[in-house]
Amino acid sequence: MDKKKNLESIFNPTSVAIAGVAPGNLGQAFLDSLLDSGFQGRVYPLNPKGGEVSGVKVYANIKDVPEPVDYVICCIPAPAVPQLIKDCAAKGVKVISIYTAGFSESDSREGKQLETEIIHLVKASGIRILGPNCLGVYHPEVGLSYASDFPKESGRVALICQSGGSIIYLIRAAALRGVRFSKAVSYGNACDIDESELLEYLTKDVETKIIAAYIEGVKDGPRFHRVLKELSAAKPLIILKAGYTPAGARAVASHTGALAGSNEVWDRLLQQAGAIRVYDLEELVDMMVTFSYLSLPKGRRVATCGGGGGFNVLATDGYAEAGFILPPLPQQLHKEISQEIRNFVKTDAGMILNNPFDITNIASGEGHYAILKRLADYKGFDLLVTHLSINNSEWPYVGASYNIWPDIFTDATIKVHHEVGKPTAVVIHGILSTRDLQRTLELQQKCCEAGLPVYHSITSAAKAIDRFLRYHEKLQAAAREGC
Amino acid sequence: MDKKKNLESIFNPTSVAIAGVAPGNLGQAFLDSLLDSGFQGRVYPLNPKGGEVSGVKVYANIKDVPEPVDYVICCIPAPAVPQLIKDCAAKGVKVISIYTAGFSESDSREGKQLETEIIHLVKASGIRILGPNCLGVYHPEVGLSYASDFPKESGRVALICQSGGSIIYLIRAAALRGVRFSKAVSYGNACDIDESELLEYLTKDVETKIIAAYIEGVKDGPRFHRVLKELSAAKPLIILKAGYTPAGARAVASHTGALAGSNEVWDRLLQQAGAIRVYDLEELVDMMVTFSYLSLPKGRRVATCGGGGGFNVLATDGYAEAGFILPPLPQQLHKEISQEIRNFVKTDAGMILNNPFDITNIASGEGHYAILKRLADYKGFDLLVTHLSINNSEWPYVGASYNIWPDIFTDATIKVHHEVGKPTAVVIHGILSTRDLQRTLELQQKCCEAGLPVYHSITSAAKAIDRFLRYHEKLQAAAREGC
Repeated sequence: MDKKKNLESIFNPTSVAIAGVAPGNLGQAFLDSLLDSGFQGRVYPLNPKGGEVSGVKVYANIKDVPEPVDYVICCIPAPAVPQLIKDCAAKGVKVISIYTAGFSESDSREGKQLETEIIHLVKASGIRILGPNCLGVYHPEVGLSYASDFPKESGRVALICQSGGSIIYLIRAAALRGVRFSKAVSYGNACDIDESELLEYLTKDVETKIIAAYIEGVKDGPRFHRVLKELSAAKPLIILKAGYTPAGARAVASHTGALAGSNEVWDRLLQQAGAIRVYDLEELVDMMVTFSYLSLPKGRRVATCGGGGGFNVLATDGYAEAGFILPPLPQQLHKEISQEIRNFVKTDAGMILNNPFDITNIASGEGHYAILKRLADYKGFDLLVTHLSINNSEWPYVGASYNIWPDIFTDATIKVHHEVGKPTAVVIHGILSTRDLQRTLELQQKCCEAGLPVYHSITSAAKAIDRFLRYHEKLQAAAREGC
Repeated sequence: MDKKKNLESIFNPTSVAIAGVAPGNLGQAFLDSLLDSGFQGRVYPLNPKGGEVSGVKVYANIKDVPEPVDYVICCIPAPAVPQLIKDCAAKGVKVISIYTAGFSESDSREGKQLETEIIHLVKASGIRILGPNCLGVYHPEVGLSYASDFPKESGRVALICQSGGSIIYLIRAAALRGVRFSKAVSYGNACDIDESELLEYLTKDVETKIIAAYIEGVKDGPRFHRVLKELSAAKPLIILKAGYTPAGARAVASHTGALAGSNEVWDRLLQQAGAIRVYDLEELVDMMVTFSYLSLPKGRRVATCGGGGGFNVLATDGYAEAGFILPPLPQQLHKEISQEIRNFVKTDAGMILNNPFDITNIASGEGHYAILKRLADYKGFDLLVTHLSINNSEWPYVGASYNIWPDIFTDATIKVHHEVGKPTAVVIHGILSTRDLQRTLELQQKCCEAGLPVYHSITSAAKAIDRFLRYHEKLQAAAREGC
């Protein structure tokens, strides 16, 4: 048996069977996800009752399927799983992804025994198991997916995640902000295929340029250490270690049955490897966005430009606190910009024009473009970060022009970015109504299409960009030292 | 002249004039806000052109108004402001709130001179000035407001804010989460009425139980120190000091012309006073919500209950990291709860039942109620924090019951809270679509009506509740020491 080759089958199966499909159940949800995602191989639903679901013939048993099957998704109750594994092994199935829960993560002795039995079957047969207690594989390249709404296009980010609910959220949240995935694996209890094997695979995967991981526990510490070292020499790794407090570690045991390990050990390990450590799902999404979209600034000199005096003061504090430098303009440039403003507004009252820049009162796209262009052209800034508080644009005091401000400001930002290519990030925040969110999603999509990262708070943008820079600063320092 | 009495007029004027009203301009926005908010006194729009705006007769000049005027809102260009002040003083006006910008905060010598001139006029006439560069006063009790959509009902929170855009956002964001205000003052450059005078007033204000402040700089340090001491002996003060970094301090000078002061001095000052310091607008809103709605837990033993294994692990980490204790259940109670679950579901596979509690798989409201009731009844928990990831409820794998899960879980939480009265907080997070936000707003309103604080991330809830507890722990320690 070739374990590695079988692992290949979880990403590139030529045919998939789904055990436990009935109308309206979650087996059908898995089936529909494959059909909706354009899976190119054959799909065989299984159920002793036979019949047809979603227009596809249902087979009573894996043995009855007329062709070879590479990959099986298992949605039948836990006690029936060992027999399914035996049948699959007899059929020559290479990998089973077990959605079913109720194994080592459960309180019951029965569940723990069942998982032990699975492990024995794996060893005896050479069949590979993903999970149990997992969603399996999303590989858009071949139309393999566990949710019909995931992007159909491929991308550069690989994600592995021990939690099923979290991976659904992570993919959806990141996709809305333009992140596209090479592969995304929900791997649950990791009774056979574990984080180390997946990371090893992704390190070598040519589709994958960035790796993100949500990990609750590690099966084989020394092996994980080796994998991490190789991985981080090749690609950036963003990692959320869940269960990093003693109470969280106890929760982990009940969730995926994993041993969480001590936070000090994790901290040292991840630091040594140069991994980017984050602490919640939002931060994980922010980092996937940053690595997907932000071009590398030459340094930490940031210009911040956005709407609202108070928001600008807080943005300045936010970036300064995160380790950025906000240099004021040289006198001559400041004078020129102040004069240029007069082409578009009668007075600069209520504006701030020396980093931060509050140019909200300019009512024309040309005006925004002119000022942003000058900021981007100036060599004294390494990075431009804009921000707009979307709810505040619904405010009568600022006149009708303000209502279109988010659009003209965003368009100007995109135009300048295309022309100058200065690293640029966009913050759209202050979402209070469904109309605010609708407008935000539209502006965000425009930005993504233009290759700009979008964040939803100034603080989170500052944190993410700082982490991104620290990662590259560390790489550069290592390169200088020749190691 | 009685300065204090004149200050009273900014909150309780019997008549208001608005200088600079024309159809469609911001003067009309101020006028409409008063009309829409049910202001009970007379309102006089002013404009040399006369006419009628929003159905109200416009007077050419303040002198022409047939009755006395207490309060004037000024929206005319900066150079015309000194003459308006003279006319108002002659008319016997007590307070002018100056919306107009272009004074000490501007780059120009002209603006700075204008502000000096205003200060001289104030000293000579006894008239009081709010601003310039401010929105003025929201006092729902008498229908005084600068935005038609602010709540009409009064509440217990007073807010003062040096930034106009920020106060609009703060009031709207807090109002959506059930916060109601006694008074909310946007005070801009503070050339006359300043933070100290406002805080002094609010310390004694019987309507006000909680005070929140966004401050960029202080005019008179020793006086502010005294006011802070008196205030914090009487009421909780939540404070956002904007411009706390050197770069932020420079931004402050361009925004409200204030001297930001050193962060070390502020830190010491606020610590000594026992004020609750926050660092961005979201944290300020979170604290207004917490002080408005959370009843004081007896200690730090928290039970967390919500949907999704990964979310529960991260919630556990989040609360533990913020200094909470998450005790597991005593064996007997754990056994009873595990048995009770069987009344509602066939298997507890996929559930977590020992703090955290993941009871998502229970499809009935009775089931959620039964488990939450047991958690609330248990004396070993001081506080119950629930969480639900709203987007994850749109997920076919978990069956139709999951889609109604947010509603039945929230209803059960509210019912248990009514019956047991255990301090309870609710997190609704993971908002990705307008439908998610719509559902969140509806659930949030239910919670507010039931007297429950709602947060939009686990991390922010943990941080806010920790700050709330630290405030009370400090008070209790001081009380024990008899000081």
